[in-house]
Order: sequence, then structure tokens, then C-alpha cells
Amino acid sequence: MLRTHTCGELRSENIGEKVVLTGWVQRSRDKGGMLWIDLRDRYGITQLSLEEGKTPEDVLKVARELGREFVLKAEGTVIERESKNDKMPTGAIEIKVSTLEILNAAKLPPFLIEDETDGGDDLRMKYRYLDLRRNPVRKNLELRHKMMQQTRAYLDSREFIEVETPVLIKSTPEGARDFVVPSRMNPGEFYALPQSPQTFKQLLMVSGFDKYFQIVKCFRDEDLRADRQPEFTQIDCELSFVTQEDILNMFEGLAKHLFKTVRGVEIDKLPRMTYADAMKFYGNDKPDTRFEMKFVELTDVVKGKDFKVFEEAELVVAINAKGAATYTRKQLDELTDFVKRPQIGATGLIYARVEADGNVKSSVDKFYDQEALMKWKAALQGEPGDLFLVLAGAADKTRKAMSELRLEMGTKLGLRDPNVFKPLWVIDFPLLEWNDEAQRYFAMHHPFTSPKPEDMHLIESNPSAIRANAYDMVINGVEVGGGSIRIHDRELQSRMFKLLGFTEEEAQNQFGFLLNAFEYGAPPHGGLAFGFDRLCSLFGGSESIRDYIAFPKNNAGRDVMIDAPSPIAQEQLDELRIGLRTEAKA
Amino acid sequence: MLRTHTCGELRSENIGEKVVLTGWVQRSRDKGGMLWIDLRDRYGITQLSLEEGKTPEDVLKVARELGREFVLKAEGTVIERESKNDKMPTGAIEIKVSTLEILNAAKLPPFLIEDETDGGDDLRMKYRYLDLRRNPVRKNLELRHKMMQQTRAYLDSREFIEVETPVLIKSTPEGARDFVVPSRMNPGEFYALPQSPQTFKQLLMVSGFDKYFQIVKCFRDEDLRADRQPEFTQIDCELSFVTQEDILNMFEGLAKHLFKTVRGVEIDKLPRMTYADAMKFYGNDKPDTRFEMKFVELTDVVKGKDFKVFEEAELVVAINAKGAATYTRKQLDELTDFVKRPQIGATGLIYARVEADGNVKSSVDKFYDQEALMKWKAALQGEPGDLFLVLAGAADKTRKAMSELRLEMGTKLGLRDPNVFKPLWVIDFPLLEWNDEAQRYFAMHHPFTSPKPEDMHLIESNPSAIRANAYDMVINGVEVGGGSIRIHDRELQSRMFKLLGFTEEEAQNQFGFLLNAFEYGAPPHGGLAFGFDRLCSLFGGSESIRDYIAFPKNNAGRDVMIDAPSPIAQEQLDELRIGLRTEAKA
Repeated sequence: MLRTHTCGELRSENIGEKVVLTGWVQRSRDKGGMLWIDLRDRYGITQLSLEEGKTPEDVLKVARELGREFVLKAEGTVIERESKNDKMPTGAIEIKVSTLEILNAAKLPPFLIEDETDGGDDLRMKYRYLDLRRNPVRKNLELRHKMMQQTRAYLDSREFIEVETPVLIKSTPEGARDFVVPSRMNPGEFYALPQSPQTFKQLLMVSGFDKYFQIVKCFRDEDLRADRQPEFTQIDCELSFVTQEDILNMFEGLAKHLFKTVRGVEIDKLPRMTYADAMKFYGNDKPDTRFEMKFVELTDVVKGKDFKVFEEAELVVAINAKGAATYTRKQLDELTDFVKRPQIGATGLIYARVEADGNVKSSVDKFYDQEALMKWKAALQGEPGDLFLVLAGAADKTRKAMSELRLEMGTKLGLRDPNVFKPLWVIDFPLLEWNDEAQRYFAMHHPFTSPKPEDMHLIESNPSAIRANAYDMVINGVEVGGGSIRIHDRELQSRMFKLLGFTEEEAQNQFGFLLNAFEYGAPPHGGLAFGFDRLCSLFGGSESIRDYIAFPKNNAGRDVMIDAPSPIAQEQLDELRIGLRTEAKA
Repeated sequence: MLRTHTCGELRSENIGEKVVLTGWVQRSRDKGGMLWIDLRDRYGITQLSLEEGKTPEDVLKVARELGREFVLKAEGTVIERESKNDKMPTGAIEIKVSTLEILNAAKLPPFLIEDETDGGDDLRMKYRYLDLRRNPVRKNLELRHKMMQQTRAYLDSREFIEVETPVLIKSTPEGARDFVVPSRMNPGEFYALPQSPQTFKQLLMVSGFDKYFQIVKCFRDEDLRADRQPEFTQIDCELSFVTQEDILNMFEGLAKHLFKTVRGVEIDKLPRMTYADAMKFYGNDKPDTRFEMKFVELTDVVKGKDFKVFEEAELVVAINAKGAATYTRKQLDELTDFVKRPQIGATGLIYARVEADGNVKSSVDKFYDQEALMKWKAALQGEPGDLFLVLAGAADKTRKAMSELRLEMGTKLGLRDPNVFKPLWVIDFPLLEWNDEAQRYFAMHHPFTSPKPEDMHLIESNPSAIRANAYDMVINGVEVGGGSIRIHDRELQSRMFKLLGFTEEEAQNQFGFLLNAFEYGAPPHGGLAFGFDRLCSLFGGSESIRDYIAFPKNNAGRDVMIDAPSPIAQEQLDELRIGLRTEAKA
């Protein structure tokens, strides 16, 4: 190595040692007689010191030419620092420099390489290699590294085999849009990039691999939302001869292991909540359970008082924001505006306060006297200082709006600490979702998910009511992973495809290999996948997955640093036997 | 779990325990009164036993309906086996079955699920999920799993950070052909799949990540040879502030660690051989050093005897096949045929034997008397029983032919044991290769490889003679990895691009982001990549990388199991705004 030590390791014990350090100039201070340079590398910062009259003239000359981010090699002796810096691990020492070599010069970076930078998003994305030099960004990727190593350590110790599944596979229209890859050797034909290794991991179970995992890139050609990437990483797992309970326990174990080793946090046994309860009490299949504020249905309690909004409502639902009775008119108006935003979609907000004397004061006192309001209070277990927030309307829409309001209140009341972690399992998801536009059922999870045997009698009469052996792990209101027990019977799988509107030919054409495989001794199996980018951002206490990806793409799917995608040579198009159309078809 | 134990774990200590096993029927034997079933899972085989009169009738009935590969759940008691089987870890016990449940039936597999199978390559590829059930195939993938875990353990313990680089990148014409991915959101533009994460790992060094690794899929759209796959896996590494020596030591350490932990073999310090010596003594930049049989140049020794073949030859080169003097005329004719094959390309083979009395008998005695042949003998350090094999002609071509002959003789003489491992480093590769067709230089390694500073004065006068700071790890005649110290200076990198025939505009357009990055403080850095599929096959003692890939593609780049690539829907083409051409352009 060009160095003897990193910039993060020298301590008082090293005083007197001759050392060679390499790194980047974080900053330098020239006080005339004395000159200090903070030398930075991945491991830390060490202070170099030079002194007029003591340091050789030529070395001082080099030191005075340095700019930020110059790459240096410095030789010298470790000495005790006069004014020690407790905040730096190396703060007790500095290096008395004897020679200094510029390994590479640096232009002034377009933004500050500091924890707090002055660079905007676009600039930092274009110069991502400089943004990655900043401590907070690098630490995010160090966390990701640790998450990967610990995930594999856990799964390896439990006899999972890591198997790489192919990236060049076959396009299947079910699900999101595929990225495709034209085949030069097979003109007119295309590979597709996998949206997940789903069918391959199921085939590995048919092969008897018993326990499989992979940390794997997946791809979806979707219109990108703020926090979606066209390529993303999954922790992908599958097991044979298991029940749902085995899978929940196994991956609850993984979550506990990660929280302990990566964050130093002990997590309790994960609560299990049915999808039905999650919708009833939180209006959401990924409830944030860091705080209570559960939904209380008031529909029956409030009816019969001539208040039209409630009389006409399919659902009247309330939450108790404890201690928020002090909210001002202005704050309440802001909440009303919040729920009336188009993306929330409520028509208005009714509220009521529990006053110090126990009486309830509502925004609908005209219709509800104290006796009536006492029923609200009872239902909501109200106490002095509580604020009740009530929404009414069509059931699904109102639950959704109330879920948003609940989260907003949780944030406002400081109940959503990113360093508190409340994981849980949401179970018993519906198997199917009816899609009005397509006039058919879609698989809520995917077409390979197994229905609960006890619900199978509903397959003709009420398919929507069939529950699946499907489960999601939810942490702090974020779905971090999900999976299901799979179908392993060819007949049942064919029936599912039919229910999802596949003709027999389509099913055979797209998934024939899997249907065939099921005929040669497929074991009962199930699995799950974690969204790894999301999991990392959650562990890091951030909302943005992009902060946890080394080279992310922007919302238009572009890598602005390397300028991709980009046009390719006519020669390449010719070899692939494809042509570009200037106009899109209608 | 549906089971209490796997099929590989029960021993004498478990006798008397009630157990539940799950697995596949390997075979069953019905001897009338007694019936045995071998139940198989990933972990082993356990014998189930049933007995007329003792086992319930309905259980016997089920057992008699079983076919090969049926999936079973068996409950019973562990009992001592009457005729123990030492070859099976579970051979001391069997399970006295009380209940038997068929979890899934199985059609008769199209080939035998045994260590030795009757299935041909094509059939086994089509039913890869069944082929993967066979022990030898599964063991290959278990070895691959172990290689991955141990590689990461070694690198993690040495402070390497695992960083995932993007899969959707930019097409660059230098190097092999890219697979491309049309972008729907950016019509007319394409992503490319990476041939390696080369530029990204160099950017990570510019970012100060110091030590990076990744086990990563890479892609090359090349016409496939027997042992090439369009997607393949690399162990990819890069380090900053290092010399070539540091890198050789670090990855020599990785090789030793893998041999020790995966194969239980201790490996000596890796010898280092210059490219020049490898070509001179082995005619090959990836010499198989499990055996000596080095080239001996006889050009000067044999001249002046009117033997036209030698007189006209640029090079006369020989090997000493020790102990092969007993080769019959027929065997020698076969060797002559071997070297005359078009892919070897020699015009003929001259040979000479050292006889018991020390005299040499050659195929060219007409031209060479005993005195002359004694000079051959001295040069080749011949002893009684040795066979000299001599080729002559143009230097490069003759070395290449002799290299093939040497390997052939090594094989014939049993000197190439796949369980003996002789790794070495080949160093000091040339920087450039002249390409007659393109009439320009190509980078021998890649355009980012740094020339040796002491050779830089040759850049105008004799570019071919410039040596690079490049190195390959070679094991048993196979190049398993290679890398180089990189250029980290913008000027030098620009000069290299120019030497390789890039215009300034092309260089900027394709690699501008890297050239720019070099201006912001790029540290000295270098790295290497191992071909992971190849490394696994070598560790497994196999010639075929395909045996070590779960779902490989065939020589036409097809996955015959899932039938990919395949046509896609017109709708997909429309969305991507591309069209198919029925005719290829000339």
C-alpha cells in the first residue's frame, strides 16, 4: 500500500511512530507560521501539521498550493496535538509532516464535500462520484453493505443455498411491464429482464433445493414515481415443506437478526394482524403501529340526528388524537384543507374536543347535544384534552382518507420517530382483486399464491372473499417484504390462471414449464421477498431509497452521470434487425 | 415444517424417536412381506420400511401405489436396521412407517434421477429442474454457494465494501458486443447491459470507497463457443492507493482462503511468471504448470544440416516427454495427426527417442548423426526413456501448436490431475495488440490499464513493446482472473484513447464522465475480476462451466426450458417504438 495507516486509525498510542498517510484534502488552514491540513479517507480524518522554520521549505511550498480534494501522500511523525478534539477519533494526535506528495490535483468541486452540502439534487446526481465522498452518503452504502452481509450470514447459517437465477429470461405480460432485450442470434425474438425470480425459485423447490435465497436485481419498466427505480434489489427466498407459520418465524428471525446486528436494537415478537383488521383499524394494509390512534367506527352511534352528512354516509369513522384538544382554529382549518386535497378526497372534517370538565365540544353541536356526544366520547375512550377527528362517506374511500389523516396527526404529534421500529405481519390477504376496467379478477399478490383451503368453496359464489396464504412484513407503515404459500398442484394452478382470464393456450405458452414441472413431484412450498432498497432506507431512518443506491436513476429513468439511456449506432440496430419508429402508434 | 427431520440426519442415537420425514421416492423395493422405500431430499436418503401384518393395511396400499419421484410425508419410529449400509450416513437406521401421505404425485421422469443418468444433454436442459435433483448437479451448486459465501467473508474481513453497480447502463462500442435494452420512456434511446462494472468501480475509487467488491452478473452478446454464456458472473474488485504487489498479495490470499475452506487444500505462495517467459516456455499466456515439459528452443542447435524444414524455420522448438520413448509407431502417427489438425496447424512432427544405451534415435536420422543428436539430448536434458517432440515454422504459430501438443502429452501421460491445483500469476502483459484488420492498436486488457512508467518512452517508437501493469491469475492452464493498475490521470487516459483510435469527441461522448471524474482528485487505483463460473468449475474439477450454473443457456443463447428468447407482443413493440425487420441488412 502507498500508506502505512488509514486516516481513521492513529491514536495517542501511536505517538512517535513514522507513518505514511494518503487521502483527500478536506480543508487546510494557513495561519502564517503554522499550517494544518485535514486529510480525509473512507476511514476518517487526520490532521497534518506543518510549521514555518521546522518543516522543509519545499514541503511548505507544496502545502500552500493545495486545493480542496487534492489527493496527497504525506509522510511524517505522529505527535500529540496541542488542542485536542474530542469529537474526532484521531483528535488526540496530528502528523508532523516531513514530505508531501501530490498524487493527483483536483479542480474545485461543483459543490461542497461536507456533511451539509450546497449542491442541489441535479448537480449531485450528475457528479454522483463526488456526492458519494460525503460522509452521510457513504455511510448509507456502508449500512447497505452490512445489511447484505448479515442477511447472507443469517440465511447461510440456516442452510439456505444462494442460487443465481438468470437475468435474460422470457417476457410475460401478467404483472408490470417488462424491459426487453432483442436477441441478435435469434432475430425477431427478445429476452426480458426479470421482475422477480418467482418462477425460477419455484422450480428450484421442484428440484429439491429445499431452501433458496438470493440478493438479486429485478427490473420493472413502470412510469416512475418519486421513490421507484427501474432496477431494484430484492432479498428473495423460498422454502419447501413449510407452513405459513414456519415462514413467518424464519423471516421474523431475519428481521430481528438485522435489527440487532445492524442497528443494535432488540425487537419483540412480531404481532400478526389480519388484512381485515388492518383495514378496519388503520384503513391501510401497511399500518404504522408506532402509535395507536386506531379507527373507531361511529356509524351506528351518530345516526338518527338529522345531520345529513352522517345520515347519508356508508361509514362514519373517527380517531382520537390524544392531547390535541388545544389545537387552534387555524390548525383545525389546516387539517380540513389537508383532508380535502384531491389525493385524500374527503369532503370535510368534523371534530370534537374533550374539555377539562369532561364535556365534549364539537363542530356539529347543532345536531349533537351533550348526551349524544357522550356516546362519541365513550366509543373513543375520550379523556380531557383529547381531540376527535371524524370523517364520513363511502366506506373504502373514507377509510383511505382517515388513514392519511391518522398518519398526518401521528407526524404532527411526534409519534413517528424514525429511530423507533415497530414491525408486524399483516396476514390473510384476499386472493383476488376485481378490476372494473378490465372486467376481470387480478391476483392481489401474484398468480402463484395459494388460496386458503377452507375458503375454496367460495370459488364460484364469491371469489373476492377467498383469502390467500399471503403475508406482508410491515415496519413503521412501510411494506418491506411479502410473500405467500404457493400453489404446487397443477390442477389448482390451471384453475387460477383460468380465473385470471388466461386461456389454456396462453397459460401453457407463458407458464407451461412451471405447469409441467408441477407434474413431476412438486413439494409444498412458499417464500417471500424483501424490497432491499426500501429495507435499507428504513434501517437508515430515511424516506428516500435513492439515498441507499450507489448510482440511482432519476424520475425519467435516466442516469444523468453517464448519460444513459442514449442512442446506439445504426450498425447495432442493423445487427439486431430492429428499426426505430419516429412516431408512436396510437 | 411438515417434517421433524431431514432425510440426512437420523443416526443410531435417534433410535426409538417418533419422526416425520418428507421427500421424494428415490426407489422402492417390494419383497412381498417387506417393502422398503428410499426417501430422498437435499440432505440425504433415509430408508422407510413397511411390513405386511404390522404396517396398517391402508398405509401398505398407499406405499404400493408409489412411483419414482412421488413427494411423500412419512411418520414413523426410528429403528435399527438389520443389514446396515456403511456407505450411507443414515445407513444404521430405518423408519418403521406408521402413516404415509402422498403430498404430490409424479409422472415418470424423462430420464433417471440418479448420479449416472440416461438423459442426453438436450433432454436434461429442457427438464433442468429435474436434472438439478441429481446429486452431482446439486453438489456443483452447493460448491458455488460455498465459494460465494467464502469469497465475501474474506473480502468483508479485509474492509472491502460490497456495492451494487447498475445493470442498465450505456452502450460503448469498445470491447465485445453489448446487449441493449430499448427505453420506453426515452424513445429511440437504449440502455446497455454491462460487460463489466469497470467504469463504475473506478468511479467508486474516485469517490474514496477505497476497497470495493461485488459478485455480479455481466453480459456479452458474442457468438457462443462451447463454454461461453451470454450472462456470466464475476467477482469484481478494486482498491485504491495500491501497487501491483499489494493486489497480487490480496488476491493470492483470496485464492488460498478458497482452496482451504472449500477444498481443504493448502496452496503455496503463487509463483510469478512474466508474459514473455510464459510465451517462451509454454507458448501460452495461461500455462498449465501442473507439469514441466517446458519448451526448449533448438533453432540454433539444428541449423546447418540441410534439413529443409529446420533450415527454413523461424523457430524450432522441442519438448521432452519423459518416459514416452516406448510410444509405438501408431501412437506417434496419432500425435502427428493431432498437430496437423487445422486448429493446431503444424505441418508435421519430428521426434526422437533416448534409448536404453543413451543413444538417440530420431525420425530425421538421415540428416542428424549421433553427434548432432547428442546436442539435442543435451539441450533437452534427455535421459533413457525420454521422447523428444519437435515442431518448426513461423515463431508465433509454432509456439501455439507446441503449446497444444504439450497439453495433449500432459493429458496422455496423466500429468493433469484435476484434483491437483497449481495457481500462478502471469505478469507484465503487453499494453497493446496490433490488429491487422482494423489497422490499429487494441488494448490487450482494456483501455483503462496503465502502462509501466519505465516503458512509456516507447509510446511513439514501439508501442507494441510497452508493458502494462496487468496480471492474470492462472490455475491449471485456465485464466481464472485478471486485472491491472489503472490510469488515474486524465491526460494519460486521453492519450490512451487516442492511441486506440478514438477521436476526442468519441472519447468524450463515451467516457466523458470518467475523464471528468479524473479531474476531481482520482487516487491511484487498480483491481481485478475473477470469472466466477470458471473458478467454480475449476474447484469442482470440471471442464464445463455450464455444470456450475443453475439455469444455463445453450450454444444458441437459448434457455430451452422456458423457451427464451421468444417473440413479444406487437403492443410491446409499439410502446417501445421499435419495429422488426424481416431482412437483415448486408
